[in-house]
Amino acid sequence: MITLASDFGDPYPAAMTGVVARRTDARIVDVSHDLPRQDVRAGAFWLRFVLPEFPPAVHCAVVDPGVGTDRAALVVRAGGHALVGPDNGLLLPPARALAGETDEADAGGVADDGRAAADRGGDGDIEVFAVRVEDPASHTFHGRDVFAPVAADVHEVGVSALDRLPALSPASEFADLRFPDPAVRDDGARGEVLVVDGFGNVVTNLPGSVLTGVDTVRLAWDGNDDLPVAPSYAHVDPGQPLATVGSHGNVEFAVNRGRGDEALSLDPGDLVDLTW
Amino acid sequence: MITLASDFGDPYPAAMTGVVARRTDARIVDVSHDLPRQDVRAGAFWLRFVLPEFPPAVHCAVVDPGVGTDRAALVVRAGGHALVGPDNGLLLPPARALAGETDEADAGGVADDGRAAADRGGDGDIEVFAVRVEDPASHTFHGRDVFAPVAADVHEVGVSALDRLPALSPASEFADLRFPDPAVRDDGARGEVLVVDGFGNVVTNLPGSVLTGVDTVRLAWDGNDDLPVAPSYAHVDPGQPLATVGSHGNVEFAVNRGRGDEALSLDPGDLVDLTW
Amino acid sequence: MITLASDFGDPYPAAMTGVVARRTDARIVDVSHDLPRQDVRAGAFWLRFVLPEFPPAVHCAVVDPGVGTDRAALVVRAGGHALVGPDNGLLLPPARALAGETDEADAGGVADDGRAAADRGGDGDIEVFAVRVEDPASHTFHGRDVFAPVAADVHEVGVSALDRLPALSPASEFADLRFPDPAVRDDGARGEVLVVDGFGNVVTNLPGSVLTGVDTVRLAWDGNDDLPVAPSYAHVDPGQPLATVGSHGNVEFAVNRGRGDEALSLDPGDLVDLTW
Repeated sequence: MITLASDFGDPYPAAMTGVVARRTDARIVDVSHDLPRQDVRAGAFWLRFVLPEFPPAVHCAVVDPGVGTDRAALVVRAGGHALVGPDNGLLLPPARALAGETDEADAGGVADDGRAAADRGGDGDIEVFAVRVEDPASHTFHGRDVFAPVAADVHEVGVSALDRLPALSPASEFADLRFPDPAVRDDGARGEVLVVDGFGNVVTNLPGSVLTGVDTVRLAWDGNDDLPVAPSYAHVDPGQPLATVGSHGNVEFAVNRGRGDEALSLDPGDLVDLTW
Repeated sequence: MITLASDFGDPYPAAMTGVVARRTDARIVDVSHDLPRQDVRAGAFWLRFVLPEFPPAVHCAVVDPGVGTDRAALVVRAGGHALVGPDNGLLLPPARALAGETDEADAGGVADDGRAAADRGGDGDIEVFAVRVEDPASHTFHGRDVFAPVAADVHEVGVSALDRLPALSPASEFADLRFPDPAVRDDGARGEVLVVDGFGNVVTNLPGSVLTGVDTVRLAWDGNDDLPVAPSYAHVDPGQPLATVGSHGNVEFAVNRGRGDEALSLDPGDLVDLTW
Repeated sequence: MITLASDFGDPYPAAMTGVVARRTDARIVDVSHDLPRQDVRAGAFWLRFVLPEFPPAVHCAVVDPGVGTDRAALVVRAGGHALVGPDNGLLLPPARALAGETDEADAGGVADDGRAAADRGGDGDIEVFAVRVEDPASHTFHGRDVFAPVAADVHEVGVSALDRLPALSPASEFADLRFPDPAVRDDGARGEVLVVDGFGNVVTNLPGSVLTGVDTVRLAWDGNDDLPVAPSYAHVDPGQPLATVGSHGNVEFAVNRGRGDEALSLDPGDLVDLTW
């Protein structure tokens, strides 16, 4: 199975599908082509959320504001899966999840857009390969011209044997990305909005466990009432805001049958300071 | 074959795809993940429209504002198909269509969001089962944690043998949903807007048969001109409104190369009073 | 393999999928259902861009403002592929690309929405068939009622044997569509915006080769600065406009991490007059 994910919208992804289908009979599954546009961190969040649901597969994932520059192309092997995409950090959080690392490990460092050494602690179960790219057909669509062909090649040779592909060599360093670390106190927590989903639900980096035994929380700015902590949206009246533990395991702010982002004026990157 | 439908947008449906693919090799088809959000009646309309085109399959359908509450999970068997989803009425109109009941039978009662007894007249060809749900992984994403696994299980045991699944038992009662009944007179009809599609075409509950032999219709409010009744959009000039019989068999208001909803100020739920 | 493409949005395409799946076990791939709405030329552009990436397949493509009128239904055979859709020019540019004709040949004539004789020069490698359509179930959804069943039939009989289908006969004439011809001078070029993609990138009919050796270009109206010619978006600073050669091989105007259409006020159909 080969999955495809990108921020390409429509109709570019079909070109990737065609390229893959021309090279292999593998089943092709579209994961998403509406990842938040050119937002590498949000893409990494959603891929980390979704890919672990899949059986072992080759995942071709492209959120790539640096297309056409000299950023490298990577293949990451993790837990029987392989990920193929740009060297900008996108692949690392989902790779660690596929390798079975806990979210806590992943959230455990400060956000890091710098270069990481391949032998960095915590990456023991993933292997990172650089792809030698021959003059691609375009400078602007490496999803079609670089990543899709490599994904097909990895599928054909097999994830366990991908190091036999002559275009791959162990990467000595690569761009890493880690989600910011929340600060949890006895009477509250300070974190950050990672993404807002299509329902307007506001997903933070705060682990859901902080809400255990908590009935209400307060967001730290004037004029906000206490928010009830509820197991799901419909436990409060329509139009009412709430805090809950989302299906990703993180603290989420929402409005029953409404949009939490609008009601609470929260956007990706905003800090949230919570007391209870 | 397993089909997936929801109002989840993106990228949540991919998690359902992964869950299903981990449990079965069945072919997976996405029907729609942009059903009108949290609108159970509109979802039921579109599923009733689309699912009868498919060969026998297991259809996992989720429009579920009550996720995480104590609403039940259902499996409905109908005409060689099975539907899996929440107990909020969503599955019943498409189930009746899959069982071969006519739209008229379905439109034959007043809208009913109350509980229906399983032996209610007119449901003879469908069988409704309740799913015993063990503590799901989340309270907010039963598409991934409840419905997708059940759909895979139903597919693996087979639709004809689904009553062998230990988690299923005949439902003594369940939420039903019927589309409102239009009132048809010799010189007109009164109905309701059920949905507006992406083109802005306004779909009503009026059966297309009422337009047989009718050349023009008038919508009952001041300032409207007579609308021509035409076989399709391009039979009137670009920008001109018309009444037609849509591909669902119902009366539809549209504008050739424009939006009928905007030109006629019609939204889902609006009453339409038509004279000819 | 059967691919489906349309401007139908959601959820109409699923009805086509169901119809095809009821008639054949062929693999079904959605190419796009968000082609620019009712814009036959833009649809033709994108299909010409995407379909040549696929292995031989039957491509069912519907952008069809004339649905329900007496416009014919066509099957076009080209380079081992078949295309099925309305007789409005949509299928011809992708068919010529699938037959291996160069873009230059395709762009070689003035836009032509008139009738073309089947033996017209340059169409030697494609064969056009008219479909005899028996009273379809609807006048408004030929994607479901005409084109999808024909695509399934063509797939089942095989592209090389499709002339055995009794419903098909060689078309003596059909609507053609050619992209407008750019005018290239030593010190500039005059062309037209064909489409704007979802990123806001402005795609013209100017062949990318005109930018070879050119460092900056100027768009011919007051107040514009020179635009740098760059191999890809990230070669200029975020927010800065550029001219580049897109993945379709044409000249494209863009803004790094922004929208070129908004920055340069360019829409499909606009003329672009370029000097260097």
